[in-house]
Amino acid sequence: MQNDMTQDKKTPTTASGSADAPRAATERDPAKIEAKLLMLDRLIDWPTSLTSREDLNKALSDGRQMRIKFGVDITARTLHIGHAVNLRAIRHLQDLGHKVVFMLGGFTTLVGDPTGKVVARVAQDRDEVEENKRAFIDQIKSIIRFDIPDRIEIRDNTEWWGTPEKHGRITVGHLFELLRTITVTNLLSRDMFRERMKKLDPIYASEFLYPVLQGYDSVEMQSDLTIVGTDQMFNEKMAWEFQEASGQVKQAVFCTKITPGLDGRDKQSKSLGNYVGLAFSPQEKFNSTMLLLDGLVSQWFEVYTEADPRQISEWKTDFGADPVALKKRLAFCIVELFHGREEAEKAESEFDSRKFKKKVPSVIGAKSVNPEDTVRKALMTALGRKAGDIRDAISNNALNLITKVNDDGSYEEEKLDMVKISAMKAKGALIRWGKNGFYRFE
Amino acid sequence: MQNDMTQDKKTPTTASGSADAPRAATERDPAKIEAKLLMLDRLIDWPTSLTSREDLNKALSDGRQMRIKFGVDITARTLHIGHAVNLRAIRHLQDLGHKVVFMLGGFTTLVGDPTGKVVARVAQDRDEVEENKRAFIDQIKSIIRFDIPDRIEIRDNTEWWGTPEKHGRITVGHLFELLRTITVTNLLSRDMFRERMKKLDPIYASEFLYPVLQGYDSVEMQSDLTIVGTDQMFNEKMAWEFQEASGQVKQAVFCTKITPGLDGRDKQSKSLGNYVGLAFSPQEKFNSTMLLLDGLVSQWFEVYTEADPRQISEWKTDFGADPVALKKRLAFCIVELFHGREEAEKAESEFDSRKFKKKVPSVIGAKSVNPEDTVRKALMTALGRKAGDIRDAISNNALNLITKVNDDGSYEEEKLDMVKISAMKAKGALIRWGKNGFYRFE
Repeated sequence: MQNDMTQDKKTPTTASGSADAPRAATERDPAKIEAKLLMLDRLIDWPTSLTSREDLNKALSDGRQMRIKFGVDITARTLHIGHAVNLRAIRHLQDLGHKVVFMLGGFTTLVGDPTGKVVARVAQDRDEVEENKRAFIDQIKSIIRFDIPDRIEIRDNTEWWGTPEKHGRITVGHLFELLRTITVTNLLSRDMFRERMKKLDPIYASEFLYPVLQGYDSVEMQSDLTIVGTDQMFNEKMAWEFQEASGQVKQAVFCTKITPGLDGRDKQSKSLGNYVGLAFSPQEKFNSTMLLLDGLVSQWFEVYTEADPRQISEWKTDFGADPVALKKRLAFCIVELFHGREEAEKAESEFDSRKFKKKVPSVIGAKSVNPEDTVRKALMTALGRKAGDIRDAISNNALNLITKVNDDGSYEEEKLDMVKISAMKAKGALIRWGKNGFYRFE
Repeated sequence: MQNDMTQDKKTPTTASGSADAPRAATERDPAKIEAKLLMLDRLIDWPTSLTSREDLNKALSDGRQMRIKFGVDITARTLHIGHAVNLRAIRHLQDLGHKVVFMLGGFTTLVGDPTGKVVARVAQDRDEVEENKRAFIDQIKSIIRFDIPDRIEIRDNTEWWGTPEKHGRITVGHLFELLRTITVTNLLSRDMFRERMKKLDPIYASEFLYPVLQGYDSVEMQSDLTIVGTDQMFNEKMAWEFQEASGQVKQAVFCTKITPGLDGRDKQSKSLGNYVGLAFSPQEKFNSTMLLLDGLVSQWFEVYTEADPRQISEWKTDFGADPVALKKRLAFCIVELFHGREEAEKAESEFDSRKFKKKVPSVIGAKSVNPEDTVRKALMTALGRKAGDIRDAISNNALNLITKVNDDGSYEEEKLDMVKISAMKAKGALIRWGKNGFYRFE
């Protein structure tokens, strides 16, 4: 692996820094910079980004340490390797000597970012925020380096925004001075808001102003650069106005690629159950990767591993006729990236062992069904199987009902036949379809 | 006069109070309350108000002192007797023992209330606010009683909102908690904003939130009641949500009547020059009232005087054939209301004297004309005179060009004839039409 992300397991709780600290020297070797840019090519969607690859190359080459804004709202989030794309991009820049300004959105979390929410998000209480903060750092500390003081700075936007009980640096009056430069039309131009207006869903004034808060955070953080998902671009662009007004240079904004989830849908998400979690054990990462649709293996190799492209090509040639073997290489590389080679080897041999095969995976695709649906109906509607496929599965002994799952994940099951599946209600049933197809109807 | 507003000329600068002070006893005599309600009938537009006359009557009758919210943004405002309608209504309630909470919008003035502004209002600087504050109090101190400590409390919303440099009581976080209860759709439903959106005029986020600030002011002021123009009803209704959330009773909201200006347009306004200013001298008030369109005399008697309705009826009968005489009674009553009987008598006799008649009034109706218009054209378009009227005026020596105005207001003039008015450009000309018709074409 080009990049070993396993060196630091310390929980970072005390690291912090100041925006005005002197800037450390950074890598200027063009070959090393180009190598990192090649890695970024696999992670960053350049055409969609607001700043170009050339401008990034220039900024990386001038030897001045950049401050990389990495702001997160501390919601109860199960991070997956899709989220890690931006973390890994940031880590590559950190490797070149640049500094991550990791900002916990203590204030903005209370306000609630409406991004991607169909309905207005309920703001969290503060104990929850503290708990979520710990859980969040636990998930990212294998990627972001917290152990080199001049490459990490930890901030919390309660410093400037305060909390409902405590003033921060910014007065209500100062906030209104910021608001005086922003028009309602501009704020309403966010896709998400337009969509909600159309559906007559309420937009609360608090979330409406969220982009202003996120934008101004860049000023306080003296951000030179940020790497975000497309859904955050609007908010990060909002920073430009405020940075210019404060005499700062506008931050570079890069956008990460979006890659479909295990089941080919949209992207990974906890609620869809189609993800590889960062908090998963090596074994869980390996096993859940094995659920990936065959057609996505190339794309996942590109984005979710750092394996050498020539090596990937070789594997494709070698295992062209054996999709499971190729997928096992992918699963191996993903585990190796986050946990190192040894864990990857252990996970693979476990997977291969009979013992594993008799265990239910830790992640099971949950499928929503109507209460009155039979298993047969559910197989056709929720899983999209054809009548012929179902008949084949039954005659191959490939369709089973799991009747008990033990603490160690081993299970008991019974064979299903056409009579049973036509009579039995699907809701609540745990089904095994073939070797790796575990589904729970809910 | 039922109500003498002239007793107190002290400038109130030190009065202030606390929302939690014990409440003084108020008038409970039903006859006295009913007499005041009859006065309010002349000032308040009950059907448009959010609270009914019956509810007000009940509240006035229970002996509990009400806190009357009177909030003003301290812009450079020339107040006129139209503005005084709400001040006079408040004064009547003060007479019954209720307390005016006079709130200077030190903070909201900086934000800028967009009400009625076609383009976004430029916020003022703070010196200006101080200057305007003094000027504002000077104009209202003949109406609102500042001399009875338990009937007046002076507040400034910088107490809770702070200034751009200084925190008030309210944190940014608290503000966002308020914003969480308000939807964008609700804020956008203000007529004014809808109009601006339609015209693609910018609405700045700061002014967009103005109603939230004004609404929450009621909570801090512990407002029981407010009396405003229709254009403020939206903002005052916004208070209800916040008051309920704070465990307060929702304030009563009453709306004042709107009465056309001297020239019959819309309402009085400084820019239209069709007003009787509160800062005008008794003589200026008298003289400008004499410029009122005859058709509006009844309406002005009702709203802008407190003369007994039977007395007004008698005057109408007595002076039915002499509109100037009737208007002089009106002008007398208006001057008497603000300055007392003696000043009214002086103003009337001055008006009647030859000396006055030879002076130009201090307020002259400015009429906008095209640069190439002749006086004849301007008389027809800007003043709406018919060709026949113009001929008649010329033959009665009633149409004159004022050629010079001296420092004391006396003037020199020359008679105009058909040849002159057809040749001479109107722009810049000062015209006298009949006894009191002074017009400047601009």
